[in-house]
Amino acid sequence: MPLNVTQKLIQSHLVSGTMKPGAEIALRIDQSLTQDATGTMVMLELEAMGIDRVKTELSAQYVDHNLLQTDYKNADDHLFLRSACQRFGIWYSRPGNGVSHPVQMERFGIPGKTLIGSDSHTPAAGSLGMLAFGAGGIDVAMAMVGEPMFVKMPRVLGVKLLGKLPDWVSAKDVVLEMLRRYDVHGCRGMIIEYYGPGLAQLSAMDRHVIANMGTEMGATTTVFPSDVEIKRFLEAQGRGQDWVELVADEDAEYDVYDMINLSELVPLIACPSSPGNVVPVTEVQGRPVNQVVIGSSANPGLRDFWIVSQIVKGKVVHDRVSFDVNPTSRQVIENLAAMDDAFMNLIHAGVRFHQAGCLGCIGMGQAPASDQISLRTMPRNFPGRSGTADDQVYLCSPETAVAAAITGEITDPRELEQRCGITYPQFIAPETEIINTDMLVAPPEDGRTVELEKGPNIKSFPEFAALSNSISVPVLLKVEDNISTDEILPAGARVLPYRSNIPGISQFVYYMKDDTFWQRAEAAKDKSGGHVIVGGSNYAQGSSREHAAIAPRYLGQVAVLAKSYARIGWQNLVNFGIMPLEFVNPQDYDSISEGDELEIIGLREALEAERSIPVKNLTKDMIYSMTHSLSPRQVEIMLCGGLINHFKAKSQVAQSVKV
Amino acid sequence: MPLNVTQKLIQSHLVSGTMKPGAEIALRIDQSLTQDATGTMVMLELEAMGIDRVKTELSAQYVDHNLLQTDYKNADDHLFLRSACQRFGIWYSRPGNGVSHPVQMERFGIPGKTLIGSDSHTPAAGSLGMLAFGAGGIDVAMAMVGEPMFVKMPRVLGVKLLGKLPDWVSAKDVVLEMLRRYDVHGCRGMIIEYYGPGLAQLSAMDRHVIANMGTEMGATTTVFPSDVEIKRFLEAQGRGQDWVELVADEDAEYDVYDMINLSELVPLIACPSSPGNVVPVTEVQGRPVNQVVIGSSANPGLRDFWIVSQIVKGKVVHDRVSFDVNPTSRQVIENLAAMDDAFMNLIHAGVRFHQAGCLGCIGMGQAPASDQISLRTMPRNFPGRSGTADDQVYLCSPETAVAAAITGEITDPRELEQRCGITYPQFIAPETEIINTDMLVAPPEDGRTVELEKGPNIKSFPEFAALSNSISVPVLLKVEDNISTDEILPAGARVLPYRSNIPGISQFVYYMKDDTFWQRAEAAKDKSGGHVIVGGSNYAQGSSREHAAIAPRYLGQVAVLAKSYARIGWQNLVNFGIMPLEFVNPQDYDSISEGDELEIIGLREALEAERSIPVKNLTKDMIYSMTHSLSPRQVEIMLCGGLINHFKAKSQVAQSVKV
Repeated sequence: MPLNVTQKLIQSHLVSGTMKPGAEIALRIDQSLTQDATGTMVMLELEAMGIDRVKTELSAQYVDHNLLQTDYKNADDHLFLRSACQRFGIWYSRPGNGVSHPVQMERFGIPGKTLIGSDSHTPAAGSLGMLAFGAGGIDVAMAMVGEPMFVKMPRVLGVKLLGKLPDWVSAKDVVLEMLRRYDVHGCRGMIIEYYGPGLAQLSAMDRHVIANMGTEMGATTTVFPSDVEIKRFLEAQGRGQDWVELVADEDAEYDVYDMINLSELVPLIACPSSPGNVVPVTEVQGRPVNQVVIGSSANPGLRDFWIVSQIVKGKVVHDRVSFDVNPTSRQVIENLAAMDDAFMNLIHAGVRFHQAGCLGCIGMGQAPASDQISLRTMPRNFPGRSGTADDQVYLCSPETAVAAAITGEITDPRELEQRCGITYPQFIAPETEIINTDMLVAPPEDGRTVELEKGPNIKSFPEFAALSNSISVPVLLKVEDNISTDEILPAGARVLPYRSNIPGISQFVYYMKDDTFWQRAEAAKDKSGGHVIVGGSNYAQGSSREHAAIAPRYLGQVAVLAKSYARIGWQNLVNFGIMPLEFVNPQDYDSISEGDELEIIGLREALEAERSIPVKNLTKDMIYSMTHSLSPRQVEIMLCGGLINHFKAKSQVAQSVKV
Repeated sequence: MPLNVTQKLIQSHLVSGTMKPGAEIALRIDQSLTQDATGTMVMLELEAMGIDRVKTELSAQYVDHNLLQTDYKNADDHLFLRSACQRFGIWYSRPGNGVSHPVQMERFGIPGKTLIGSDSHTPAAGSLGMLAFGAGGIDVAMAMVGEPMFVKMPRVLGVKLLGKLPDWVSAKDVVLEMLRRYDVHGCRGMIIEYYGPGLAQLSAMDRHVIANMGTEMGATTTVFPSDVEIKRFLEAQGRGQDWVELVADEDAEYDVYDMINLSELVPLIACPSSPGNVVPVTEVQGRPVNQVVIGSSANPGLRDFWIVSQIVKGKVVHDRVSFDVNPTSRQVIENLAAMDDAFMNLIHAGVRFHQAGCLGCIGMGQAPASDQISLRTMPRNFPGRSGTADDQVYLCSPETAVAAAITGEITDPRELEQRCGITYPQFIAPETEIINTDMLVAPPEDGRTVELEKGPNIKSFPEFAALSNSISVPVLLKVEDNISTDEILPAGARVLPYRSNIPGISQFVYYMKDDTFWQRAEAAKDKSGGHVIVGGSNYAQGSSREHAAIAPRYLGQVAVLAKSYARIGWQNLVNFGIMPLEFVNPQDYDSISEGDELEIIGLREALEAERSIPVKNLTKDMIYSMTHSLSPRQVEIMLCGGLINHFKAKSQVAQSVKV
């Protein structure tokens, strides 16, 4: 059977399962990446699992999110990550070396390999013909210790590219066109694979732009073939030897088909506050702009910065516009500075040039003024993500962004020719880039004697007990439908610094609903050994942050009783040993009140025997029948008290078998 | 009588008083500078005074402190400052254009002129032969509206410079030698004037380094002559026409004398946590370093960055060191990038290159890791100023700083020759610098129709009533000796964003002592029309922040009863209409309790008649005799309810006389 690129990648890494859309498959993972905001917890999980060295072919840890350092915590995290990388055999990309996705691609990406990363834009590596997944920290930790990754076999959406991009239209407009068609949910359960003659003129970094923002459509990942363009890219990176060809077989088929004629694309822009609100730039032309930001993993290439530098040459940034450049990597800065006038043009025009990293893309700096328009080449414009609650963030190409920086208003960049006499600059990629790997620190051969360097805010992963068979605990909170992980445990500048400190961050659990929650939970833990939460439908939707399960577990949460769960939130509960119970009769939800004392008897036995689970409401003298959706593998995990305990138990068995 | 440079500057600007040390003199002010952290309040004060246009020869507003933008507030402040500059006739230096002091010097500094600035390092302009003072916001505002500046005539300390700096020793070591001799208080009430043959080889920017940190010794300001070196500097800045010679007369005398032989200086370093803890670098050599920061107004010159770029050429920053470069201005970045390999060397070695501004110097980013050593070329290392409470900040020259970045430990830079084979690079200043004033926006001819652009966090200066004659109010708080303005109103990331919002920031008044203070004050204002505070000796010492008087006044504080006051804190109370009363019998302090109801009758009359002021303790049934130290000018201000009311009253009188 002829295979497409996705199928080839999956087939070559299939550990179990069949390639039938919807069926669970297990995949061997070759590489991992972690960034600092999620990586500290991954390292603490590795410590808790008691491993000596990761088992992936390559793992790399980046410091790109938390670079601002307004107190000691971020700098302490950097030292901790450095020591953990040495301890566990991981490459360490030092602060300021750049954003994980482009650096991973430039330095480590290999066509045909699989990659898992604790960052939702990890699929960007699909640009090289890799199969790359974003995942929660514990999933990445499990892959690092050699476990396969479990995923439901997605459908493959084949998008045929025809034609050639016009001047002033670039890769960002291609993925904005996809978002215009599919919006932010349209590719759920799918892998997007691009093919066709239009690929020929899309560079590897152009493909990175497109693969990166596949995440915004809800796609499992995005895949490109590894063709001569990828060969050229790897050669320019001094890694020609890592190239292998990986293209779809002739007559390969896709589950779903679509097509884009590049020649017909116009400059597009995603309006506030969703990446799916895409319209032609002409539709919103003339709106006054206060800020323009270039950079991020969604426009990380040398080309993206170079083209901006040529367009602003000899110009001045408009009087009302703050024009910020977030270079994506040290390599980009160095190569840009080596290209004649590129860096000078930017500085001369009045650019605020920042250290290499994610910065404004995740709201770490450059928050826009209130109720002012900010144009960004970044992947997301969710409300408030910029750091400003009432932000007006638009997403667009570097061409569209820089046009606004010059004119002070949203401007179709094609108009720059007439309005400002600017000819579209033609980028010629250097045959070889300046490569300097000094800021990428290789791990020592043996790190077993390395001590983890933990500042006062870094706490070891807490030990959790195995699942109790019988419990009698209070309902500490009853919440409505669609509770998000943001409500369970918010992000933001106040909470994020505690990401490597579970006792510290646990004080913010349900803080937005009840700021005494954590104290009540501590009291219930002392008195009754824990508590439960009662939820409605779609419990724990939203961000994948695993802290929204770890911290409640730390506070003694033993189970949730809900009508239904969001997929990732549900999985996190299981991974950290909180039992996600489902009402057999949803109307039972109505009869439970906050403060009720619930008794669950024989939970372990019920799980093992695959029976429904009776829960007694001691306060109301009622009995509820509860069920669950755990697979046999997950029942095992739950009985152990979570994935880390489960892994340790398995290792001990393996160890004792050896002995 | 032969005059020194200081005396010439004072004589040519003397409005009233005599040049006798200790006597109050009034000086005409030619130029002003404000930075964003203090400038927003200055602009609100100008608005409250109802003026149309500033009366200085030149006023400039810089945006250099609050550049990180973690929410909308800083960006809103930038837009507000931009509009206020247009409204009131002030130059606006856009965010990222650079630190006020070097930019003011490069673009606007003129030998022989006076300058006042709402930043304590304003004396840096003394490098050009200017008389430059740091002051509180309201003092700057008054100078901007044409009022003279009042100051006690300082003594002049003449420091004769001999010899020539050895290799690896630079201007920062000269001022560190001064700090070694005078510590942080030794030059209070003095102006430091440098003279002698050693000046010949100190460039204008070298002198800037030395003048800048005169502030650290408590000096009123620092003065250098305007000689051929200043001519050369102004010519390189394209402003040769602004040069005038200004040197001491032969046989000019000083009140105090000192001498430094530059040839004998060695690399020096100020240890934690005072700029006065100076020792030779050799004494602390070998201590492990985790962070090195180059930049700030205390090493702002092209030379300072260039020399670092040459020393790190082909090297890699030590594995454990975060090496941060804070360029001081866009002009420095541009000229550095134009100097062959300078910028490339920095990036290649692994530098984290930040936007131009103060950043880490005032704890806005790059806080070091906990309990780790940070070497900085900055002017201050007070405990916690970096943003990390238990910081270990050392101050040193760029040469000493970069040596540690390479070796990972405190290193005498002279050892780099032997240890790393580095020859001391010899800086040759470019004859003319690349000048680009596009980010310095000139005000329009007439700004009267410009609307002030106020984001939701920017509130107009509150209206304060004239002084009441009789009041009966509670003692809301009784505090001990040496209460600092940090205790009255703390700084820090939580409070600073409210600097342009008096109602907002008033909620933090005495927060550290009693977090219900502001609510109790609001209640007392409603019930009794205000409150008083009882203090010990040296009340309101520390930082000059005027918010520590404005915010209490907003909360209804009508008077303080204290044993004695710190000078600037006392002046701020007067300026904003809080009556600083002094106990005639200090032991009366003991008999007052928090909550006592005090009655002050005939306060206005007593002030006008220069009588002592009786205060009745209604709760204890006692009478205290109080006095004050206000000058007749200050009595007038107090009766009006503060300086702004006083200015408005004077203007109305002038207006009605005209009519």
